[in-house]
Amino acid sequence: MPPADTAPRGGIDLGGTKVQAAIVTPNGEVIGDARRATPTSGGPEDVAREMAAALAEAADAAAVKTDSLAGIGVGSPGEVDEATGEVSGARNLPGWDGSFALSAWLSDALGAPVRIGNDVDVATNAEFKLGAGRPYRSLLGVFWGTGVGGGVILDGERWLGRGAAGEIGHMVVVIGGAHCPCGRRGCMEAYAGRAAMEAKARREDADGVKTDLFKIMKKRGHDRLTSSIWERALNQSDALATRLIDRAVKALGAGIASAVNLLDVEAVIIGGGIGVRLGEPYAERIEKRMHKHLFVDERPPAVHVAELGDFGGAMGASLLFDD
Amino acid sequence: MPPADTAPRGGIDLGGTKVQAAIVTPNGEVIGDARRATPTSGGPEDVAREMAAALAEAADAAAVKTDSLAGIGVGSPGEVDEATGEVSGARNLPGWDGSFALSAWLSDALGAPVRIGNDVDVATNAEFKLGAGRPYRSLLGVFWGTGVGGGVILDGERWLGRGAAGEIGHMVVVIGGAHCPCGRRGCMEAYAGRAAMEAKARREDADGVKTDLFKIMKKRGHDRLTSSIWERALNQSDALATRLIDRAVKALGAGIASAVNLLDVEAVIIGGGIGVRLGEPYAERIEKRMHKHLFVDERPPAVHVAELGDFGGAMGASLLFDD
Repeated sequence: MPPADTAPRGGIDLGGTKVQAAIVTPNGEVIGDARRATPTSGGPEDVAREMAAALAEAADAAAVKTDSLAGIGVGSPGEVDEATGEVSGARNLPGWDGSFALSAWLSDALGAPVRIGNDVDVATNAEFKLGAGRPYRSLLGVFWGTGVGGGVILDGERWLGRGAAGEIGHMVVVIGGAHCPCGRRGCMEAYAGRAAMEAKARREDADGVKTDLFKIMKKRGHDRLTSSIWERALNQSDALATRLIDRAVKALGAGIASAVNLLDVEAVIIGGGIGVRLGEPYAERIEKRMHKHLFVDERPPAVHVAELGDFGGAMGASLLFDD
Repeated sequence: MPPADTAPRGGIDLGGTKVQAAIVTPNGEVIGDARRATPTSGGPEDVAREMAAALAEAADAAAVKTDSLAGIGVGSPGEVDEATGEVSGARNLPGWDGSFALSAWLSDALGAPVRIGNDVDVATNAEFKLGAGRPYRSLLGVFWGTGVGGGVILDGERWLGRGAAGEIGHMVVVIGGAHCPCGRRGCMEAYAGRAAMEAKARREDADGVKTDLFKIMKKRGHDRLTSSIWERALNQSDALATRLIDRAVKALGAGIASAVNLLDVEAVIIGGGIGVRLGEPYAERIEKRMHKHLFVDERPPAVHVAELGDFGGAMGASLLFDD
């Protein structure tokens, strides 16, 4: 077994639709990867089994054994206890309302130590250490996807609070405003999250509002409005898609500005499925909306699109063994 | 001259209406104090002269010479450069739109080293080190007064960002909402700041809405709605006062919850002229409104009223010589 400081690390990004695994060298190079669909039924153990399989497949591709890895990091949704390796209340995963000792299960299955972090926190850390955030010491990661997640880096370290910091998607941008998938009202995610936007698009479609969003969805054989469907509809100047994305951009601008007014960070990194798909032009629009709400507006933070794309989560997870 | 670690420190809290000075021992005891009105005309030098006079008067009361102080800290509004001791853009002070080297001026006048910090940051630090925040390692100070200021303590240290962190009053709680004294829209301060509430009360009064607010004001010989006037009107169940304070409580609850969702701090300390005047019952109401918006609502932060009252700013300023 090579010494821990030169041995590669494993990283697993556990998402609601896919499990992304990667084998990463200590200097941040991905030497093997694999992807599997997240089970949509069963329970935590079924999900863990797919995670282990994906990691083993990535290790095969890198020609390393899983038990020779310096460690395996996991970025997980839900409430993550970094100390015990338990994950609870992962609403987007099957049968995962309670708590499951994911770290212990994976460590048994793969023969290497396992550490678990919040998915968005580790992805933010990846952008900070290896991606668009490298020039900065403090930044905010904003992951614009199914929900809107956030990660906070202050003075070079992840800021976790009591374990649940970074919920930028649930900052309130309109008191008493739109219903959020979290059950509350007026959260940024209620306007900008893919799930919330899709729910609103379905209601408007049912009310007879003209849109090609669902035609594009059917043509592509999907049953939900993926980021690429939104992109396509925007490119066709679909009125509903344009209106809902504009609304999302406004909410993101206001929520991000609120966070910047509170923390005065150097940079904002915009990632996530939609964030990366829509890329630079939309990051610029979010930046403009943000600027309207900045209290110290002569010195705005830099705004960048995340650089690490689909591997960001898994790379960030592997960094849990850098601390 | 006693050695620096036992010599008392001076502290000056520079506010829009008054200058509060205190002489504070290294263990946080106030041994002399003085208060003067902040000049309403002239320029920065006139303000600085009153500050020096207040500090000298406090030193007299403590029977110490100003040049024997270990240092004099100042909590100032406006944009404070802690490194150079310059203060700029202090909109609530006369003729202070530009920059003024306050630290150098006071140091010359008083014969002791001077350090300057943001007024709300130092008051938050005072609550953290000597007041209601002592049991915690991370907290948010919310100063509910003419404006709404904020201070952030993370892992035992003031978090200043690039120098302008803590502007919780300018977190956006209603996109496109009420006009804020800062010139933007929908900020928490646009609903909760005393100045914004007074402007709205005056508009409603002019529109014929029935209220005793201005009767109480005239009876007391004031020309603005002080915190005690709001308190009196609330105690009389004045409908307009009740409605505007309810609106402020909602905005404070939403904005504070946004900050907690982002930072997951252990505690929130509510200070400021109105915050301290209305005290515990209103802190509880803000806490209830906050709770509605907390993403992790089974583990809310503790909420306390600031303990140090009028001396908090000056005591916090003196702590600039503890770092």
